[in-house]
Amino acid sequence: MTAPQDVRAGRARELDRAHIFHSWSAQAGLDPMTVVTGRGCEVVDEDGRTYLDFSSQLVNLNIGHGHPRVVAAIQEQAGLLATVAPGYANLARGEAAERILSHAPDGFTKVFFTNGGADANENAIRMARLHTGRDKVISFYRSYHGNTGAAIVATGDWRRVPNEYARGHVHVFGPFLYRSEFWASTEAEECERALHHLERVVQAEGPSSVAAILLETVVGTGGVLVPPPGYLPGVREIADRYGIVLILDEVMAGFGRTGSWFALDQHDVVPHLITFAKGVNSGYVPAGGVILSAEISATFDDRVFPGGLTYSGHPLAMASIVAALDAMAEEGVVENAARIGEDVLGPGLRTLAARHPLVGEVRGTGVFWALDLVLDRSTREPVPAAEVVAMRAALAARGLLAFVADNRIHVVPPCVVTDQEVARALAIYDEVLTDAEERLLG
Amino acid sequence: MTAPQDVRAGRARELDRAHIFHSWSAQAGLDPMTVVTGRGCEVVDEDGRTYLDFSSQLVNLNIGHGHPRVVAAIQEQAGLLATVAPGYANLARGEAAERILSHAPDGFTKVFFTNGGADANENAIRMARLHTGRDKVISFYRSYHGNTGAAIVATGDWRRVPNEYARGHVHVFGPFLYRSEFWASTEAEECERALHHLERVVQAEGPSSVAAILLETVVGTGGVLVPPPGYLPGVREIADRYGIVLILDEVMAGFGRTGSWFALDQHDVVPHLITFAKGVNSGYVPAGGVILSAEISATFDDRVFPGGLTYSGHPLAMASIVAALDAMAEEGVVENAARIGEDVLGPGLRTLAARHPLVGEVRGTGVFWALDLVLDRSTREPVPAAEVVAMRAALAARGLLAFVADNRIHVVPPCVVTDQEVARALAIYDEVLTDAEERLLG
Ligand SMILES: Cc1ncc(COP(=O)(O)O)c(C=O)c1O
Ligand SMILES: Cc1ncc(COP(=O)(O)O)c(C=O)c1O
Repeated sequence: MTAPQDVRAGRARELDRAHIFHSWSAQAGLDPMTVVTGRGCEVVDEDGRTYLDFSSQLVNLNIGHGHPRVVAAIQEQAGLLATVAPGYANLARGEAAERILSHAPDGFTKVFFTNGGADANENAIRMARLHTGRDKVISFYRSYHGNTGAAIVATGDWRRVPNEYARGHVHVFGPFLYRSEFWASTEAEECERALHHLERVVQAEGPSSVAAILLETVVGTGGVLVPPPGYLPGVREIADRYGIVLILDEVMAGFGRTGSWFALDQHDVVPHLITFAKGVNSGYVPAGGVILSAEISATFDDRVFPGGLTYSGHPLAMASIVAALDAMAEEGVVENAARIGEDVLGPGLRTLAARHPLVGEVRGTGVFWALDLVLDRSTREPVPAAEVVAMRAALAARGLLAFVADNRIHVVPPCVVTDQEVARALAIYDEVLTDAEERLLG
Repeated sequence: MTAPQDVRAGRARELDRAHIFHSWSAQAGLDPMTVVTGRGCEVVDEDGRTYLDFSSQLVNLNIGHGHPRVVAAIQEQAGLLATVAPGYANLARGEAAERILSHAPDGFTKVFFTNGGADANENAIRMARLHTGRDKVISFYRSYHGNTGAAIVATGDWRRVPNEYARGHVHVFGPFLYRSEFWASTEAEECERALHHLERVVQAEGPSSVAAILLETVVGTGGVLVPPPGYLPGVREIADRYGIVLILDEVMAGFGRTGSWFALDQHDVVPHLITFAKGVNSGYVPAGGVILSAEISATFDDRVFPGGLTYSGHPLAMASIVAALDAMAEEGVVENAARIGEDVLGPGLRTLAARHPLVGEVRGTGVFWALDLVLDRSTREPVPAAEVVAMRAALAARGLLAFVADNRIHVVPPCVVTDQEVARALAIYDEVLTDAEERLLG
């Protein structure tokens, strides 16, 4: 893992500043670090410095960087056939669908492939609208579903606001006891009231106008919100009561992140459609898609599905999915994520929280955790986002790449993370929390 | 180029029928051919049979199948770093932007990368709306811009109709003399009237509500409509007169297809934003993007751009762009497309048309041509689409993969096509046209 020597130092950064337009940012003040290579849970910058990647980049690198089997599969497929139009049959595509379906609940029969998470949700919404003949989509205020025209309006965070060019999107609050919108004091109460609220909104909007309820099985960027037991089965009941399609977005939560193949496996719920991306191939090649239940799929047996994209079922992406899922199965990667969460990372983060008043709550499962940072444990006043961004810089200076959002640090390493790497990371979080407390709590 | 022998024959097709949900189709009747590998302008099916690819798949394979330099670049980058979050700097990404900008007109300074053409247009529309503070997007009835929520509503063909969930989209007619909407009888008249029509719609919609005019430089799927001289400069004048952002969609037309690096190079026009995908790396890895003029880019220097996606500037895609554009430049691939169009394919198709009454018009440039098929040359009554689909099957049976749309055969080989391959293809089109004429014209 060394940087290639034939390239002038600083050139990547120079080109970046001159020519790269960055997402979700004002462009003027950016000063990005250069990443050259990576292996497992580590990445290497231009000076050869190594960092622990506890962000999994954008929470997509479930299998870690540079997995030899996935790399080899890409190299082989590139030589055989990189791309083919979606209309042809291709073995890598069929095998990728087969692997994905083998991990899905019974009754799911087909996969529609896309390039990422946004277009997965776009197409799931399209399927739901056409299946029901209805228009509205109910989704959640704390949620992210992608940046395209329908997906962005389904999104529940600030990224929706400047993009509200589509109609038919309604937002509700989901269960989140630590910051309850329902004046609840127990998980059971939060769950019951969140279901009541959802059903009231369905009724008030007019059930016959609602095509889909779209939600993340475990809300990711919005705060790693694991739903209380009973919530998701309750949502499915409401969907069934009113003939609404239930779409579970597993783009971030799926393929090992929560310690099971799908997050829904832990919640006793079966939706009509599942969307995925990220962990399915750890993002080695852009890919995503929709997993269809037989019921929704049948709608389009004799009726044209009016959606598509040039790279649907792209062979290079498909080969990387087959290799990633096979490697994860054979190497026990999902089991590792579960064990780490249960025995190492969860307990470790709780110990940190006990020592640090800045940590208001620790939430999560598997390798999917958030530290909800507060200035005051009784009022739960969030730490300002700018302070959390400063903490991210402090973590990077100590050799750890972190994922932060609002007042939170998300602790989201690859599923292949080891006990030793968790121990190193916990020590770094500990130091940075101590410094931040000195600054913020005096 | 042989198929791997360790796989049961028919398995790709079997898996496809069981598990793959196809775009733009009813699912029940599909019977796709299996593609195993390809090289240059040829692909190979499961039985080892070779086909001339005169579709470039979905008109994306400008450099042909299996180009050794692009394959090698993917293989190398896969080993170094397949994926990294958009927030980091990365050398392959900077170099890809530099290469792309080197072919763009003066005054273009930055690139925002996406996964394909739809999300390129999504983000260009977003930039235009935020830059102008306006809402509406004017695009063309004969056009295709992608399948996501905003892009699909900008789309002008039938794929828009079941997807009209967004607001603010207005459609106009563009110039198309052979099927004029303006009762014109010369190119000059068609051009002038189409510009008048566009300006009247801008005025009637209220210029202060129009954010963008979005159009394909050369309309692709809508019929290979090369605009008459003066049309695009006239559109730019209208845009300037009313403070509207001009977006040229070069997803299909760009990177060699028309015989120049960008189609706009042949039309004396500079837009504010250019969208691209397909030919930039021939689709070896899903990629697309927006090329920003300094003017639009500056809007987001101190203001957050509210758009993004997990795989923006994906290293594997970026490495394939660098290799594809370098190979195209060094091997004279764009010059070849121009020469083939001028000296071989254009004349050859015109000779075919002279012999075949079914061909109403031949249109095109470079390796971007359409045969507009008619039942009657005086009424120009289109050949029914089902007949053209049957012709596609007849072409495949003779060893040629064709791209068809509505009543047209699009003749769109890779830019690396040779004189000999064109001669083989022309002979096949000739036979199939003869058969079709016997059937359709008696
Ligand atoms: C839950 C969820 N859905 C959808 C998306 C969008 O995926 P993409 O960025 O690949 O479009 C994301 C991305 O972070 C996500 O976390
Ligand atoms: C002109 C044009 N724009 C946009 C697109 C959409 O590109 P993608 O399929 O990669 O989303 C296409 C696809 O055919 C196209 O031809």
